[in-house]
Amino acid sequence: MTIPDDHPRRDSLLSRQRIVDAQAAGLLADSALIAHGRGEAFDYLIGERTTDSAKAAQREALNRLFHAKSPVISLNGNSTVLAGEEAICLAALTNSNIEVNIFYRTDDRMRLLLADIQKKKNKVIETPPSPKIAIETWREMVESVRIYGENPDAEIPGLHGPRASCSSLGIFQADVVMVPLEDGDRCEALVAMGKQVLVIDLNPLSRTSMRASVTIVDEVSRAIRQMVRMALHGPSHDLSDWNNRTILEDALSEIATAVKQLQR
Amino acid sequence: MTIPDDHPRRDSLLSRQRIVDAQAAGLLADSALIAHGRGEAFDYLIGERTTDSAKAAQREALNRLFHAKSPVISLNGNSTVLAGEEAICLAALTNSNIEVNIFYRTDDRMRLLLADIQKKKNKVIETPPSPKIAIETWREMVESVRIYGENPDAEIPGLHGPRASCSSLGIFQADVVMVPLEDGDRCEALVAMGKQVLVIDLNPLSRTSMRASVTIVDEVSRAIRQMVRMALHGPSHDLSDWNNRTILEDALSEIATAVKQLQR
Repeated sequence: MTIPDDHPRRDSLLSRQRIVDAQAAGLLADSALIAHGRGEAFDYLIGERTTDSAKAAQREALNRLFHAKSPVISLNGNSTVLAGEEAICLAALTNSNIEVNIFYRTDDRMRLLLADIQKKKNKVIETPPSPKIAIETWREMVESVRIYGENPDAEIPGLHGPRASCSSLGIFQADVVMVPLEDGDRCEALVAMGKQVLVIDLNPLSRTSMRASVTIVDEVSRAIRQMVRMALHGPSHDLSDWNNRTILEDALSEIATAVKQLQR
Repeated sequence: MTIPDDHPRRDSLLSRQRIVDAQAAGLLADSALIAHGRGEAFDYLIGERTTDSAKAAQREALNRLFHAKSPVISLNGNSTVLAGEEAICLAALTNSNIEVNIFYRTDDRMRLLLADIQKKKNKVIETPPSPKIAIETWREMVESVRIYGENPDAEIPGLHGPRASCSSLGIFQADVVMVPLEDGDRCEALVAMGKQVLVIDLNPLSRTSMRASVTIVDEVSRAIRQMVRMALHGPSHDLSDWNNRTILEDALSEIATAVKQLQR
């Protein structure tokens, strides 16, 4: 499919195509496509743009990654496909590691996703995200990003079966976990472990959004791309009081306003 | 997957499972799952219920089917899977025929969908939707429903490739076409042929919703089930002036109100 450069919904259509292709290639569960469709609808309602409150949440999440002792970015299938490169950049800039961790775990999908993220790492390492970062420095920064997920050897307490699996050196020991597109049960279980959980979720009413420490109501690739830009300036302030409830209310107001405007 | 009987979102989860199973069985294109996810999000926002304005649209659509000379209900993959039985009931009660007609046409998917709808017809014929209809009468009513789609021998003007295909005795000659879940281009092309186009679409802002003669903003199986109940009482009034724009504005207001209530 070719999408004209000036198509007003180009980014959204490209993302959809990426998801369809990845599913055809065996990287994603069927439910991944349905989840993507739900996200598309919410993104459409917020105007396929990053709102001011989402920007505030991105800044907060970024600061928590910067101040964490052992931050981990957990990628599922959709976030690997849609924002794997951006996530590696962000991990390199914030000294985070990555864990590929999927809800419906199968060996085949894990193998394909780990190969995909490795390929993306090899691509990202070639080009610093800013001319201010020397290529040698950038290489070291990207090389230092560990990718976990191949051998899960720990379990998230309170979950059962494959969905409990995680890596002892990855999610299990992290104090701050960024989990774009997380399932509600898992989000709760990670919070119950005492971790700060940073999520990216287009539905401000989902259980994940409501339970997270910081919720970024934005499309995953747009959100992480924006966080990468912010990260180039380093942490912007010390950790503040954060009211996540207010952010969710803002996001709902944005949707309500957008719907009313569309009515005209 | 087993879903508890009292799960508040049981219908939605059952529909999702039906779509996932049908896709795994080869009945649906990948894009079908994404479309279903988009629908889920909009349905969530209207509270997974039939609104009053959707009921008014169902009544109007039903009357148009009753008063048509040659009404056809066009089913794509998702609507066959989610509401095939309901559609056959409705066709039997309104003297309509059915055409299975999919946007991304392949022989394999058409064969599977036609077999699926035939199986559903064989099931529906066994049980009248009301005890007032004698079983023999019901059998005749259901038997008289023709199922087109196997041999498309006509083209919808203005479209190109497989998506233009339709049956000369089905959609092509119909004066009233009910097309749940139609694509925007096709909806426009059918309207341009001078047909009355009745659609079921959960997104009141989609091009399909905006171009249709009557838009029912509701989930497809819930909508057609409700129309079957209404149809048991026959046509309720003569054809009225119908302002579809008002219906779409009502649907948007419902979403805006629902979002505001969820904020509390």
